[in-house]
Amino acid sequence: MKIWLCSLLFSTGLLQAQVSTVPSVGAQVFIEPGQSKEQIFRWFEILSQNRFTSCRIRMFESYMVNGQGELDFTLFDWAFEAAKKYDIHVFATIFPEVPFENVGGIKLPDDDNQLSRISDYIRELVLHFKGHPALAAWVLINEPGLGYLPNTPFANQRFKAYKDSIGSIPDGLHHYRQADLSKNQFLLELNTWFLKWIATEIKKLDTETPTHVNNHQLFSLVDEYDFPRWMPFLSSLGASIHPSWHFRFFDRKDYPMAVAANCDLIRTSALGKPYWVTELQGGANTFSGYNPVSPTDEELAQWLWLTIFSGAEGTIFWSLNPRSVGIEAGEWSLLNYNGAATDRLGQVSKIANIMLEDHFFETGRPLKENIQILYTHESIWAEKYLHVTQSPYEARNWGASMKSTLGYYKALTSIGIPVKYGEIGTVNWVDPPKVIILPNQLSVSDQDWENLEQYARNGGQLLITGMSGQFDENLFNRWLDTSRYVGFLGGELLEHRLVENVFEVSIESKKLPAHLFKGILSSGNDFATHSLGKGRVTWVPSLLGLGAWLHDPKPLAKWIREVIPSDKNIPSIRHDGHLVMKWMESENQLLGIFINTAEEQSTVQIDRDIGRSKVLYGENIIQDNGFVLLPNQMLILKWEKE
Amino acid sequence: MKIWLCSLLFSTGLLQAQVSTVPSVGAQVFIEPGQSKEQIFRWFEILSQNRFTSCRIRMFESYMVNGQGELDFTLFDWAFEAAKKYDIHVFATIFPEVPFENVGGIKLPDDDNQLSRISDYIRELVLHFKGHPALAAWVLINEPGLGYLPNTPFANQRFKAYKDSIGSIPDGLHHYRQADLSKNQFLLELNTWFLKWIATEIKKLDTETPTHVNNHQLFSLVDEYDFPRWMPFLSSLGASIHPSWHFRFFDRKDYPMAVAANCDLIRTSALGKPYWVTELQGGANTFSGYNPVSPTDEELAQWLWLTIFSGAEGTIFWSLNPRSVGIEAGEWSLLNYNGAATDRLGQVSKIANIMLEDHFFETGRPLKENIQILYTHESIWAEKYLHVTQSPYEARNWGASMKSTLGYYKALTSIGIPVKYGEIGTVNWVDPPKVIILPNQLSVSDQDWENLEQYARNGGQLLITGMSGQFDENLFNRWLDTSRYVGFLGGELLEHRLVENVFEVSIESKKLPAHLFKGILSSGNDFATHSLGKGRVTWVPSLLGLGAWLHDPKPLAKWIREVIPSDKNIPSIRHDGHLVMKWMESENQLLGIFINTAEEQSTVQIDRDIGRSKVLYGENIIQDNGFVLLPNQMLILKWEKE
Amino acid sequence: MKIWLCSLLFSTGLLQAQVSTVPSVGAQVFIEPGQSKEQIFRWFEILSQNRFTSCRIRMFESYMVNGQGELDFTLFDWAFEAAKKYDIHVFATIFPEVPFENVGGIKLPDDDNQLSRISDYIRELVLHFKGHPALAAWVLINEPGLGYLPNTPFANQRFKAYKDSIGSIPDGLHHYRQADLSKNQFLLELNTWFLKWIATEIKKLDTETPTHVNNHQLFSLVDEYDFPRWMPFLSSLGASIHPSWHFRFFDRKDYPMAVAANCDLIRTSALGKPYWVTELQGGANTFSGYNPVSPTDEELAQWLWLTIFSGAEGTIFWSLNPRSVGIEAGEWSLLNYNGAATDRLGQVSKIANIMLEDHFFETGRPLKENIQILYTHESIWAEKYLHVTQSPYEARNWGASMKSTLGYYKALTSIGIPVKYGEIGTVNWVDPPKVIILPNQLSVSDQDWENLEQYARNGGQLLITGMSGQFDENLFNRWLDTSRYVGFLGGELLEHRLVENVFEVSIESKKLPAHLFKGILSSGNDFATHSLGKGRVTWVPSLLGLGAWLHDPKPLAKWIREVIPSDKNIPSIRHDGHLVMKWMESENQLLGIFINTAEEQSTVQIDRDIGRSKVLYGENIIQDNGFVLLPNQMLILKWEKE
Repeated sequence: MKIWLCSLLFSTGLLQAQVSTVPSVGAQVFIEPGQSKEQIFRWFEILSQNRFTSCRIRMFESYMVNGQGELDFTLFDWAFEAAKKYDIHVFATIFPEVPFENVGGIKLPDDDNQLSRISDYIRELVLHFKGHPALAAWVLINEPGLGYLPNTPFANQRFKAYKDSIGSIPDGLHHYRQADLSKNQFLLELNTWFLKWIATEIKKLDTETPTHVNNHQLFSLVDEYDFPRWMPFLSSLGASIHPSWHFRFFDRKDYPMAVAANCDLIRTSALGKPYWVTELQGGANTFSGYNPVSPTDEELAQWLWLTIFSGAEGTIFWSLNPRSVGIEAGEWSLLNYNGAATDRLGQVSKIANIMLEDHFFETGRPLKENIQILYTHESIWAEKYLHVTQSPYEARNWGASMKSTLGYYKALTSIGIPVKYGEIGTVNWVDPPKVIILPNQLSVSDQDWENLEQYARNGGQLLITGMSGQFDENLFNRWLDTSRYVGFLGGELLEHRLVENVFEVSIESKKLPAHLFKGILSSGNDFATHSLGKGRVTWVPSLLGLGAWLHDPKPLAKWIREVIPSDKNIPSIRHDGHLVMKWMESENQLLGIFINTAEEQSTVQIDRDIGRSKVLYGENIIQDNGFVLLPNQMLILKWEKE
Repeated sequence: MKIWLCSLLFSTGLLQAQVSTVPSVGAQVFIEPGQSKEQIFRWFEILSQNRFTSCRIRMFESYMVNGQGELDFTLFDWAFEAAKKYDIHVFATIFPEVPFENVGGIKLPDDDNQLSRISDYIRELVLHFKGHPALAAWVLINEPGLGYLPNTPFANQRFKAYKDSIGSIPDGLHHYRQADLSKNQFLLELNTWFLKWIATEIKKLDTETPTHVNNHQLFSLVDEYDFPRWMPFLSSLGASIHPSWHFRFFDRKDYPMAVAANCDLIRTSALGKPYWVTELQGGANTFSGYNPVSPTDEELAQWLWLTIFSGAEGTIFWSLNPRSVGIEAGEWSLLNYNGAATDRLGQVSKIANIMLEDHFFETGRPLKENIQILYTHESIWAEKYLHVTQSPYEARNWGASMKSTLGYYKALTSIGIPVKYGEIGTVNWVDPPKVIILPNQLSVSDQDWENLEQYARNGGQLLITGMSGQFDENLFNRWLDTSRYVGFLGGELLEHRLVENVFEVSIESKKLPAHLFKGILSSGNDFATHSLGKGRVTWVPSLLGLGAWLHDPKPLAKWIREVIPSDKNIPSIRHDGHLVMKWMESENQLLGIFINTAEEQSTVQIDRDIGRSKVLYGENIIQDNGFVLLPNQMLILKWEKE
Repeated sequence: MKIWLCSLLFSTGLLQAQVSTVPSVGAQVFIEPGQSKEQIFRWFEILSQNRFTSCRIRMFESYMVNGQGELDFTLFDWAFEAAKKYDIHVFATIFPEVPFENVGGIKLPDDDNQLSRISDYIRELVLHFKGHPALAAWVLINEPGLGYLPNTPFANQRFKAYKDSIGSIPDGLHHYRQADLSKNQFLLELNTWFLKWIATEIKKLDTETPTHVNNHQLFSLVDEYDFPRWMPFLSSLGASIHPSWHFRFFDRKDYPMAVAANCDLIRTSALGKPYWVTELQGGANTFSGYNPVSPTDEELAQWLWLTIFSGAEGTIFWSLNPRSVGIEAGEWSLLNYNGAATDRLGQVSKIANIMLEDHFFETGRPLKENIQILYTHESIWAEKYLHVTQSPYEARNWGASMKSTLGYYKALTSIGIPVKYGEIGTVNWVDPPKVIILPNQLSVSDQDWENLEQYARNGGQLLITGMSGQFDENLFNRWLDTSRYVGFLGGELLEHRLVENVFEVSIESKKLPAHLFKGILSSGNDFATHSLGKGRVTWVPSLLGLGAWLHDPKPLAKWIREVIPSDKNIPSIRHDGHLVMKWMESENQLLGIFINTAEEQSTVQIDRDIGRSKVLYGENIIQDNGFVLLPNQMLILKWEKE
């Protein structure tokens, strides 16, 4: 299988089905020794009764090892048999043996020996299950991404080879323009290499079954993920979204926005191939999770709907049943201790049912985006390289560049403007988005910098804010060659001055909150804007994204709405609060989701005459083309197109 | 000497004396090179003048080494001579050579070589001092307990042997129900092994002198202490109680409660043998201590009285005189820099005098307890195993299970109900307490779980709260076999949901504060209670102990008073505040101690007609069978039994 | 060149010039590969146009290495050529090769091999540039001082040799009075050794050029600096003063006071030789600095003036132009990104001009000090040795002894009393200051203790406060020999009791804030004072310095003004706020600087009739011999002597 379209034509089951059918709701079935065949069949029966159509199974090598040197697949055969019986499509996760305490599984091999043992395990596993009618995809490993380059023989040896391959520094002059970020770059390479190696091992034996992989800790580990280079060997991209582990940047009230951002980033990164939310927190935490949470049924409904509105082909909850021993034992589950459905399962089952019953979802897709928020890997590496000590000021800490993008994401989502959100490598420069936003991306490579300028010259609208572009990929400070960039940026930057945590910048008649560093332009203005070729560049060298993130996204939202070209496809909505707002459409219908993430109620007014709306989900009454959302309340409306 | 009773019959001096006489007050005499014979004699004279009857001496090998390959005992001979002269009973601490910076002394040997050198030192020391009339006991080492398994050749080699001895895991199935807690279990074993080895080395040469050892950092290191397995080779158990080092769980206003809890735990753990407070902070901190304190004379009086009311045979202050160099130099002392008595020494001397003068103390003992608060080692190991990161929520941090027991201890002590407080291994299942409380003990072994059920069936009253029993000893989550435990617990638990730091649960007409996790029962109630065999089980799967600890112990105290059988021996007292209240009795007399640990004054009303009381210690006026306690005030009353 | 006076006679340029001319203002010119000759010449032109007369250049070996085994000096030759053209005196920093990430440069060699390579580099460098007319001084290395003894072959091997040289401990008795502080002592030795080695390497080849070295992180690293032992091989002493890196003890409003303290400490340590502020922060931070700051032009003016009022021969800003890659790239600069002058450069240029134009500065020097604040290395080592864990109480943390001295410094500077401020080794016991203050110096060696007593007997006035002298150099607690010190101190100390963070002590009719520990004297007073020989000793064993530091320096200032002999040379000034106040004088004129460091305005009244003042710098109006200072405002006044 070379590309995704092939898999649509030739593979069986789920992925093919998706083309003409609705988003899937699924759940992880956690298979462990000690479970009976009856119990396992019962779980799949529950999935089916609740109108789930997919599941994921962790194919523990540890639980296949029988001490006689071969793999015993009994437990997993039962699960596949049950899946087939109840018509559940299985995402099977490659899970080589690791110590019991390692709940996340292997991320990178420790040495060549382990690599060879993984190859053996994959061969046995794939040969046993390939062609099984329930098998929907191989998940290459669970959640790649470590957070650091491990100090293992494998990594060290490969790193040495990598360093040799990029060559030594020839002379003092070279020194001058090069901070050494090769460890970060290499970690990106190594993750890609390992995933590709697994995909290749599988495809030697099974060219039919789609391949998939799900990242995790997205906003923290994003500099380890080279999604565009993964997509050639993946049929679909995935994401784990566990607020209690993954949303350290966010308050609980912003979890809906965070789910949407996570999904939009993954959709963008899949480069047109499908994406799945391969794990979505389904149950309560006790001991696990950085910020433990017992999600309510309403929260689960919001999260699930947002994955759908962000274009997921399906969403698999983690998990149906809990693991039973040690870390996470008894947690995360849609079933209670008694093995019966919780209110959470009831709620998501209702949504699964709506999607299967309402024809909209057969063809409904998110509204097309004309705008992309960009980040660069190099900016995150620069944050790490330049970091002195944990600071009370966000801009000086690791995470600042992603939070800058999230400030924009929050602003745009609150006014219902659909966005692409992705690393700069996801941009197709031949057919780029109409608007590109580069918020406080500290380091941009010379090649990307040139691409951005060319993009504007060719007609793009480029919005650059914060410290974006200050450094090239070797941490050379571009502003020391200021004169070279005046033509591109339309202004001359003199200094960045540390002001205070939040201060105001003036852009024409508007006041926008900015964070910490004020960019001083020679014009005396806080911004520069000019036409460049067929396009336009607007530059605000103060940190608007973090200003929105830390203080208030509304002024940023209002300003952006003015400076970007308006899109007639997007219904115009007025409200006085903090909303997450997204849209889907089919040929005949439009769907809008509205979630109030503020602590006060919000009145929402639908300005555009798009006909009478119908409540698809939620309890609100529509009056005079407006409605009221209580704190944390969600409403989904449907309009017939005219 | 095999057991404690033998030592009563055959040994000389102090311990024999205790049978018929009063609790001893003592102090550490810190012997160092540079001291004169005169100075040392002066210290013992001071002890005697202040009516102290015991002391402790650290038998520094470092200060006996004379560079000629033998031990020079001169300094210590002087001290023993002085002790004899002034009739002071000496607890002599085995203290093998360690670097000068190591103020705590050896906890475990580093290697076999060191073990052999320790054996040599013990032989010389014991042969020299055995039979000395002042020698009251050998203290095996100073304060066993490290907080972690050290990475030494000795520990590593023994751990390997231990792992071999418990066998390898035979197959994948086995895996399933076993998290690996062997390091924790082994540390427990190793501490016991080393103490027993020292006791054996001593007893090879000296079968007469009692043996003793004092733990430290009790609430933090308790999972390293296997007291029931220590008692066969100990004549008495000991405790170090230094608020500035040991009371990190407590605020200063609760130090009296903490002293009482520490003592009750040690008394319970001594399994009927005597116990001593072998170290009690006697002086001010400057640089040492985690929470430095200059205890007032009133505080010292409270602490000393509480050790007596908790049944200590004696209490030895640390220290009479200070060490002179480096860490702790000049601190901790009952004498001032000038070598003269402080107000603190004056105050405790007054108490020593009362005890020697008032015949009550010859036979007075604490009121018998009918109730025991239990903890398990496994719960603390589980906390460590499951810990992700320091949490704002107590229940998720190491220490939660001990704080849960302390919540109950605080509640019960505030209403004057005497309790046993100990590890589950201290329970004599043949003659158990009438009531057992198991507060949020996360992990309980299958054997103990069965014992608890059997205890109830046989007529015991069992109160289980919080997450008690959730895990077995291998961290298998019992609730996933919910149906197996319905018969025992009288209810069916569906989930633990994270609610908030403090919330209320309803138990019949009462509202009790609980912490973080709410246990959801299928009945819809917050509790279950039922008769089981001849006994009763009451189960509240929410965290009442931590609710009391973090918020208010009064509601818990009120509820417990209702659900446990009333005890006519305990005088009924009403008050409106936060008190520490304990009782002693002799054949004819009853003594009560009352300490107000609140920031407001409290009115105490003695309800039961137990005759007119007499003030033994304190300044209060008794009117209408009631009295007022100011903040931090203590009162001791005596009644004649009728 | 043996001593400083020789260099005055024989060396060329700058240092000679200083004798008869004004303080120099300068800046670091940061030379890197990629710069053009034109650019470099332009920077020197800017220096000259702004009336700067000195610069510093980092002589990067890394940027001289050309891959052919020799050093290529081209870039640096250009810089020296430009310096000569524009009459700028160059401080050339020896900067052996280090990895690019190491922005601070070498502090100590890793091994003998590196030492030998450094020797080769020095030879080539010195032979090339010696005798160049622009060369003013060799800076031995950049900012010695690491903060810890490195674990390198070099350090370990030398430490072993050092330990051997001081001998092993002969017997147990010896043990008793010795905590082991040899690592701290050795680090002091090693830094001295390395600096002297470099000076010797230079002087083998170049006996003419003055030598210089600049410390950094003064208040933190001061226990690594043995200035009196450095001075024999230095022509002048230097200091780096970067508030954002170095002023962690201070709030921003106190940065002026901190600059003055830093300078006074270095002036005192130079033992009469000149000193320079070799680095003074000149520009904004973005990512570097512990407490990043964008200094305003007013702040730069205050800092610069304070270096002059503290007697600096010159002040070199870091830096004129920024480095361009990696850590600190684009930061710290007096020029903006465009290479043009900032308002900061404009402001300091104005001051440089005033000093060149006003004849006062040709001979003006700081008022002579009659008082010295002392610290001891041993006190800082004791803090580190005795430290348990970071404490909420300053007195228990590392830094307490220096903060104690700073409390006094702040008090004295606020009333305009000039002080020496230095390590006890800087005192010339033959001609000592009239008053010595020893604020909370925990450890004082027996020799120094004897010197202090002798100092008083000989007529000195000694003020000892806090825990000063509690320990000798081996951390033996002197108070345990209390009786020995009664004759010296005039009182008998009984205990130090922990009271609270800030409490009051009574000294005659005054109430002074003290910190944490109250010294209890047998007299019942909070202080003792008595005549001793021809002098006087005043002892307050509570922590007045930290009381002033943490709470309010005014009461301490008032009390000191009463207890020290008055000095008729110091104009008497009254004010109601928090000021930094310093004085310079020439034969005919007096100059005073006044900076308001409070958040409220302050009225300053000049009491003494010293004639009419003229505003030299600042915007204030003098009325009725008084003026008002707004928060952060600075005023410099000049009086003609009568």
